Amino acid sequence: MADIRFHKHDLPDLSHYNVGAVAIDTETLGLNPHRDRLCVVQISPGDGSADVIQIAPGQKKAPNLVSLLRNRGITKLFHYGRFDLAVLYNAFGVMPEPVFCTKIASRLTRTYTDRHGLKDICFELLGVGLSKAQQSSDWAAETLSPEQLEYAASDVLYLHRLRDVLAGRLARDGRTKEADACFRFLPTRAKLDLMGWDEEDIFAHS
Amino acid sequence: MADIRFHKHDLPDLSHYNVGAVAIDTETLGLNPHRDRLCVVQISPGDGSADVIQIAPGQKKAPNLVSLLRNRGITKLFHYGRFDLAVLYNAFGVMPEPVFCTKIASRLTRTYTDRHGLKDICFELLGVGLSKAQQSSDWAAETLSPEQLEYAASDVLYLHRLRDVLAGRLARDGRTKEADACFRFLPTRAKLDLMGWDEEDIFAHS
Ligand SMILES: Nc1ncnc2c1ncn2[C@@H]1O[C@H](COP(=O)(O)O)[C@@H](OP(=O)(O)O)[C@H]1O
Ligand SMILES: Nc1ncnc2c1ncn2[C@@H]1O[C@H](COP(=O)(O)O)[C@@H](OP(=O)(O)O)[C@H]1O
Repeated sequence: MADIRFHKHDLPDLSHYNVGAVAIDTETLGLNPHRDRLCVVQISPGDGSADVIQIAPGQKKAPNLVSLLRNRGITKLFHYGRFDLAVLYNAFGVMPEPVFCTKIASRLTRTYTDRHGLKDICFELLGVGLSKAQQSSDWAAETLSPEQLEYAASDVLYLHRLRDVLAGRLARDGRTKEADACFRFLPTRAKLDLMGWDEEDIFAHS
Repeated sequence: MADIRFHKHDLPDLSHYNVGAVAIDTETLGLNPHRDRLCVVQISPGDGSADVIQIAPGQKKAPNLVSLLRNRGITKLFHYGRFDLAVLYNAFGVMPEPVFCTKIASRLTRTYTDRHGLKDICFELLGVGLSKAQQSSDWAAETLSPEQLEYAASDVLYLHRLRDVLAGRLARDGRTKEADACFRFLPTRAKLDLMGWDEEDIFAHS
């Protein structure tokens, strides 16, 4: 079993995070950031361990976590970062940058499939089988179950290795520049979601 | 009638283009840049005049036009630049930057409508009525008709004034930063179209 550290409200300190890249995921009550509150933030330094931070209703501050998110020297690894960026910006007013998104990297390289879910890419690229059984559970519960903690952690434990494999593919296929431009735009894409353009492809003709 | 200068292959010189912003539009044989060749490039310095440049089949060079497109000191004004950027990059290997796109600016400010066509915004914001009668005509014709020339020019003659009005709206509504980020991403969006991701919203979940 992975090394999971559980916290309420915030990280106790940043001692595990003298790193170049941090993996981040969030759990919410649903997919509408204006309606569905942030319940859990999971992060991993990429050493096989994870911190699972339970967020309280109405909580507006998490100084250690926010200072990590603000640190531009640390790349933030997400799977479908578009959603987590919107959630984190909405909750704490911080836009984590720079970003690497494994879903976008997968779209740009795994052109032989339309399956870009985290479970799919973990299985194909790392041979790791993730269980998604807890995905639709009550993340606002006062006490998170061991299964929930395990699930929450598993969503960040493999992002560093996925980033390495996918960055290799992007380079091999000559698509690193396009991926970087997508990652740079992602924070704006997330802000536009919060501002009300969530259903619209802003680049579409009509 | 507007002051329209007609050329074959290229601009004769850049004497009209000591400007901060140039309006650009293209006419092609259709909407697929890999199939449908570039036939006409229209540009305007924003003084009510326009240059209409007829491009020959297989033409790979247009040194004056390309040096204008390469000049990063000149903002390139487009309506739905996504398409023209792809067409110009495909034809001449140059990606015009920086960009302002009136369709994106309209999407970000005219939230009271879903009509973001050039005709719609010219009429609403400038009181100018454009005719779209020549839009679907044979732009590869050896001799362009006076109606085609007039139409081609009209697509660039109002972009400076539209940019001014729309930039004012973006500022008023606090959306300038988001628009700028969209404009910065637009060249990559156009490259991804050429690379085969034209039907896909690269930022979508699935
Ligand atoms: N429209 C949408 N449909 C499905 N999942 C979405 C979504 N918008 C955001 N997500 C998030 O994307 C993640 C799943 O991505 P994928 O399907 O690519 O594995 C889920 O995160 P969690 O797994 O943390 O709950 C979910 O919260
Ligand atoms: N999928 C699409 N549908 C319609 N027009 C498209 C398009 N992709 C690119 N275009 C271009 O977008 C322009 C029209 O934009 P709008 O409808 O917003 O006024 C047209 O340029 P032209 O007017 O130069 O022919 C057309 O070539």
